[in-house]
Amino acid sequence: MRRAQGFDGALAATRAAFLGGCSATSNVLAGKVFGIPVKGTHAHSWIMSFDEELEAFKAYAKALPNNCIFLVDTYDTLEGVKRAIEVGQWLRTQGHEMIGIRLDSGDLAYLSIEARKLLDNAGFPKAQIVATNDLDENIIQSLKEQGARINVWGVGTKLITAYDQPALGGVYKLAAIRDRGADWKYKVKVSEQALKVSNPGIQQVRRYKRNGEHIADVIYDEQADLKAGCVMVDPLDMTRQKRIAADTEFEDLLKPVFRNGNKVYELPKIAEIKERAQKSLQGFHSGVKRFVNPHQYPVGIEKSLYSLRTELILQARESVL
Amino acid sequence: MRRAQGFDGALAATRAAFLGGCSATSNVLAGKVFGIPVKGTHAHSWIMSFDEELEAFKAYAKALPNNCIFLVDTYDTLEGVKRAIEVGQWLRTQGHEMIGIRLDSGDLAYLSIEARKLLDNAGFPKAQIVATNDLDENIIQSLKEQGARINVWGVGTKLITAYDQPALGGVYKLAAIRDRGADWKYKVKVSEQALKVSNPGIQQVRRYKRNGEHIADVIYDEQADLKAGCVMVDPLDMTRQKRIAADTEFEDLLKPVFRNGNKVYELPKIAEIKERAQKSLQGFHSGVKRFVNPHQYPVGIEKSLYSLRTELILQARESVL
Repeated sequence: MRRAQGFDGALAATRAAFLGGCSATSNVLAGKVFGIPVKGTHAHSWIMSFDEELEAFKAYAKALPNNCIFLVDTYDTLEGVKRAIEVGQWLRTQGHEMIGIRLDSGDLAYLSIEARKLLDNAGFPKAQIVATNDLDENIIQSLKEQGARINVWGVGTKLITAYDQPALGGVYKLAAIRDRGADWKYKVKVSEQALKVSNPGIQQVRRYKRNGEHIADVIYDEQADLKAGCVMVDPLDMTRQKRIAADTEFEDLLKPVFRNGNKVYELPKIAEIKERAQKSLQGFHSGVKRFVNPHQYPVGIEKSLYSLRTELILQARESVL
Repeated sequence: MRRAQGFDGALAATRAAFLGGCSATSNVLAGKVFGIPVKGTHAHSWIMSFDEELEAFKAYAKALPNNCIFLVDTYDTLEGVKRAIEVGQWLRTQGHEMIGIRLDSGDLAYLSIEARKLLDNAGFPKAQIVATNDLDENIIQSLKEQGARINVWGVGTKLITAYDQPALGGVYKLAAIRDRGADWKYKVKVSEQALKVSNPGIQQVRRYKRNGEHIADVIYDEQADLKAGCVMVDPLDMTRQKRIAADTEFEDLLKPVFRNGNKVYELPKIAEIKERAQKSLQGFHSGVKRFVNPHQYPVGIEKSLYSLRTELILQARESVL
């Protein structure tokens, strides 16, 4: 929360993180507002407010015997693990089970492997190891490759701030307009930069699929007839074209929310949105999702819309000669 | 607003941008809530909703004759400037003056120089040129070096998302604790990374100054006696020390907000906070503020606090051997 833009910014970002695949949040307000599961541990200050780490763990275990994930790195991580085990053993005599430990600094690969050994040897094979500390997808991948024994990944700063891409370069432009009852007029915003020329039309996005796998996303005009299949054009290089057969499975991605001033859409429950997002991600080939040199997923404009766009751009540019 | 974390995130970031030096915002809600001056122009969609750009400018001028900054790059920027001039001349016949034009794409150096010539030659030497388009401090500096004739810089995405440093790596740790009436116990959080070891004590930050210029910021313990001056230590290299003479002018930067559970601070008005921030920035030598290889401003820990910190770290580490 302290990295986000105020608490409401944190709420919006927490919701997005949950929809994108996270399973829980340490943002208690987001739990209350959206029903996202709330998980977390005590802070270093809890340990430091006692004279001894062991004393701090014990006090925590007495207060919350069913919610014990001990943060073990305040002084010395592996000594902290041993003290957590000691309190875990005491908890068992009280009929409770320690959930696990949390590592928040140091060499997470080495420390998690050593902590796993200590926990296993002490009879806690089910105790979970939570890791945090400026994690991102690359560090997590590297830790996995190193054989780190981490069960739960706590990601904060790099996720909530969209650290490696803090802004998505989208814009909205007028694409079509009409007076009530009149025909649509299609509009285009030209620019000296090809990437910044807008698309005209009443747009829809069709995602084509084969055997459950997404094969291409095509922007087309709702008034176009795609019954005979479609040809997709790369707007930055019109010689790159892809023909999609008529019988290809598809899904139209845009859903109308307002029609003629009336709301025609009900927002699904958050669990449903999350499930939909996860299913959608599964439809992309793993090559598209890898971090290094990912395969470029085919995205383009339907050919007749591309032609109309070209014509409108030429008109707009000629009109000022 | 569309780049921030929800509208409340945008509010928080807009307030911060204003305090940091911006003079106005296009976020109307921030204007209402904080009293920040609101400025902006029409959108490209305003132009595109008409058949002709000239028609769009005229309709805008009729609706808001005292608020005309024409966005001229929907079709062809310099042709747009000529049309803005035409409408500016019409406005004069109505007793109003066009404020200026806005460039939002293309070569802002070239276009602003050419637009300035057109405006000057047409008798609009006071018409302002506003520039936008993913600006940041480096682009602005480069445009200035190229002699761009830009009067107003509109910065959005790169500012509101803190694009080049989306998170400030600060943490908060327990530094001292006491039972009511008892002595303070000083606390330190050790870490394998020197940078992540916390500072103990009841901390205050003293900014030393000479002839109105800031010369160093020192973290010290409130209970320390600095009447005889102080020695500042670089915590990452204790051989780097700096002696500050007893009669050096200073300001303590931290203000208590709560004391014994009572609020003891009134938040100043936003204009006052902004003025204070601007004055404070002026106190830094320009070498500290340059973009390329800036001079490092001296920051450190007062020597007796550094010694105490070292002692507490050694104690914490010995206690686990």
